[in-house]
Amino acid sequence: MKLDHVNIATPDADATAALFAKLFGLPVVKRTTVPDQGVKVVKLDAGNAIVELTEPTGPDTPVGRFLAKGKPGLHHLCFAVKDIRGEVARLKKEGVEFVNEEPKLGAAGLPIVFLHPRSCGGVLVELVERADA
Amino acid sequence: MKLDHVNIATPDADATAALFAKLFGLPVVKRTTVPDQGVKVVKLDAGNAIVELTEPTGPDTPVGRFLAKGKPGLHHLCFAVKDIRGEVARLKKEGVEFVNEEPKLGAAGLPIVFLHPRSCGGVLVELVERADA
Repeated sequence: MKLDHVNIATPDADATAALFAKLFGLPVVKRTTVPDQGVKVVKLDAGNAIVELTEPTGPDTPVGRFLAKGKPGLHHLCFAVKDIRGEVARLKKEGVEFVNEEPKLGAAGLPIVFLHPRSCGGVLVELVERADA
Repeated sequence: MKLDHVNIATPDADATAALFAKLFGLPVVKRTTVPDQGVKVVKLDAGNAIVELTEPTGPDTPVGRFLAKGKPGLHHLCFAVKDIRGEVARLKKEGVEFVNEEPKLGAAGLPIVFLHPRSCGGVLVELVERADA
């Protein structure tokens, strides 16, 4: 699998995008909101991968609860796959637990699932289905 | 700047490498130890970037203290730059605080510095100097 993006949870995606533009020269390539996930999303171009910033739209959302428990910072990794349902079936046979095993539509309008950190060495891992993966 | 690698802190780099090979098909491209940083390092190929696993060589090391405070998982991002001393000077003018502003040699034998998370939206950011950055 290929790294698709690295995600950072932040209370203010625009402020973090401005900071990362100033410090690291990463340009904004997309701004969107995903009501189903309760996030405002700003995507930054890091050359070979995307650095994705997510700001919760309210406290009772996955990222809102993450920020309430701890500090802003690295949140998850995402790998691109060609066949998400095939990968979910394969990973379930490996004993992987999922946050959601039924694909939802993510920020790119593409099917996504999340694997539970306890199955992935403590890392929250997302898979996204892309035709060019 | 271009994303160089994503780092994951783990109590057992070989076990996590075996897990990530099984789950995500990421092959090991390098195993090394960096005595100066107190880490055993396993690098995995994620297509367009490296997923780097670091296991502390003892409890009184940066990664050992990180694992003692919390859980294994995402630890830092690294961007590649052409001129690390030039970037340090520029970032200091922007008010950035560093963990180490004098470059040390990292796992690739290349100069590295770490920016403090409080200057980078909660994210520990490493810069590595690469001729091809």
